[in-house]
Amino acid sequence: MIPTLEWLPEGVNFLDQTKLPLEETYVLATDYRQVATVIRDMVVRGAPAIGVAAAMGMALGIDRSVATTIDALTAEVAVMAKTLAETRPTAVNLFWGIDEIRGLYNSLAAKGTSIAEIKAAVIARARQMYDEDIAACKRMGAHGAELLPMQGTVLTHCNAGALATCGYGTALGVIRAAIERGHKLSVFADETRPFLQGARLTAWELMKDNIPTTVLCDNMAAALMRQGRIQAVIVGSDRIAANGDVANKIGTYGVAILAHEHGIPFYVAAPWSTIDLATRNGDLIPIEQRAAVEVTLINGKQMTPNGVGIENPAFDVTPAKYVTAIFTERGVLRAPYPESIRAMANGAPQPTEQTTV
Amino acid sequence: MIPTLEWLPEGVNFLDQTKLPLEETYVLATDYRQVATVIRDMVVRGAPAIGVAAAMGMALGIDRSVATTIDALTAEVAVMAKTLAETRPTAVNLFWGIDEIRGLYNSLAAKGTSIAEIKAAVIARARQMYDEDIAACKRMGAHGAELLPMQGTVLTHCNAGALATCGYGTALGVIRAAIERGHKLSVFADETRPFLQGARLTAWELMKDNIPTTVLCDNMAAALMRQGRIQAVIVGSDRIAANGDVANKIGTYGVAILAHEHGIPFYVAAPWSTIDLATRNGDLIPIEQRAAVEVTLINGKQMTPNGVGIENPAFDVTPAKYVTAIFTERGVLRAPYPESIRAMANGAPQPTEQTTV
Repeated sequence: MIPTLEWLPEGVNFLDQTKLPLEETYVLATDYRQVATVIRDMVVRGAPAIGVAAAMGMALGIDRSVATTIDALTAEVAVMAKTLAETRPTAVNLFWGIDEIRGLYNSLAAKGTSIAEIKAAVIARARQMYDEDIAACKRMGAHGAELLPMQGTVLTHCNAGALATCGYGTALGVIRAAIERGHKLSVFADETRPFLQGARLTAWELMKDNIPTTVLCDNMAAALMRQGRIQAVIVGSDRIAANGDVANKIGTYGVAILAHEHGIPFYVAAPWSTIDLATRNGDLIPIEQRAAVEVTLINGKQMTPNGVGIENPAFDVTPAKYVTAIFTERGVLRAPYPESIRAMANGAPQPTEQTTV
Repeated sequence: MIPTLEWLPEGVNFLDQTKLPLEETYVLATDYRQVATVIRDMVVRGAPAIGVAAAMGMALGIDRSVATTIDALTAEVAVMAKTLAETRPTAVNLFWGIDEIRGLYNSLAAKGTSIAEIKAAVIARARQMYDEDIAACKRMGAHGAELLPMQGTVLTHCNAGALATCGYGTALGVIRAAIERGHKLSVFADETRPFLQGARLTAWELMKDNIPTTVLCDNMAAALMRQGRIQAVIVGSDRIAANGDVANKIGTYGVAILAHEHGIPFYVAAPWSTIDLATRNGDLIPIEQRAAVEVTLINGKQMTPNGVGIENPAFDVTPAKYVTAIFTERGVLRAPYPESIRAMANGAPQPTEQTTV
């Protein structure tokens, strides 16, 4: 079990993903502000993991509060929520994680529950969200596995694995589930500049599981597709709009177009909490711009001339038309996505096999 | 004038491109074997520059030979040609540069020319090839410039600039020529993993010329295209097959597909010496695989877990169907390429404007 994040009596313990793959070190956050820093600095990253980290950050903040009245604690909770919400704008799971704990807090506070009982309840809920995340990944893996080829190589971009979740993974969870069911799969991992989540994180966790893995630079996938060496693409997501547009790590949109051009299926795996019914389409998803130094400075050495402009959007949006299917813990979504997403939101079971064309 | 390579009385002087952009240092090759090393280690790179470097390497080898008979010198010339030919397999200009000097040597030797006169003649020819390269870049710039937009941003991949030639550049030469003619252009430079020619070299030489330049990771171009921020793509080439298929730096093929999908013109600029009439199509172009450490090790630090597989093809092939036009010093090639290339090879003038659809 890869210890992405863990609730401990001393605080929330995070595997420091900025140090992988060569160093396995941990950062213990004993305060909600430290959780916010850990999210912003990408010690923990990946939409589902960020969601649970934010929930644990809220629970930690509430638990460590010395407020003696509900009014004082409620004011603190508002500050905690704001602090955590300002860390990263794109992953909707962040806001889901915060709101889940804040909503529970508000309902208990309104009922006159004691502060001690509230503390116990929010901790229990955050820990339950952790367990639910792992269970959701396994269910999405079961739904998605049967659509992966029985043998061949699957390309993934960024890290949508155990390290992006509480364990097992979304995209990599589907690959794990397929392999557990007897599929003979190997993985091509895009290195995923500038943060190199593929080279550092995806390769690290797949090697731990003895899944054959090859790292390539992001610009190499097209040539491999043309050579017939990629049978499917699977990625995670940071937010899926109500029309099926998918925000994910920068570069995903390009990979989706390349898959489309080569007739290769392009799958997205994400928990239901990633689907944002309040966002009509992908153009409305805020895209985080990160600091230029993430691009210019590699291992402490400047790779660009002084004064040059730099682009560093952290995410892009893949229009639903390029998405073959979306795997969630509730089932498999297919085009037309506005209808299938609405039906799933309303609790209708989704067919695993494609029924529309 | 950017001093990519220069014939000096002491030898051939190369700007060390592995050290740019922060250090401008030079490597003086006083022996043809050193020229081979400089080409293999990418101190000098870029197909046109490699062609002239190889010619200068041949001239240097002949000039520094202590052979006293034509038979002895001819045997040495064969070794020189073999040594230089084994450095890098993809750029056809390498073989063109070697053959140009060897052909001259053979014809002079057959005529009974003295060794001293042969030495002077091959040096003169290598230096003339240098001048011809710059003149060819300027002519191809003049042909291509009028097809670039009057304003907007042009995306380029890798470095097809002054640093890839004897000066001025192929793709960047066309951009320079357009700007000299009053076009208001800025440049997006793909950083171009793993060697970072875009971040290090293209950005460096364009900044020297005060051309507004922004570096992006290779996986960001698709998102910028979707935002309407790229009006044209222009790249160089290492070999163009007789059917118009274009070998160029790994990642070019993906960029061509993305341009096609977004309705953005995709141009290739290359001297006529890059067109290989003996290679029927792109599938027949040998693709150099380079060492895994170029991908795994960045500035001395290993970025991947031990034992993971690595892909590192240095080039890919873009099928002619994605190429809007090819600019050479002889004129502009358009589809159908087999016909337009054959006509240009036979000396027929090529229209600058498109006449077929």
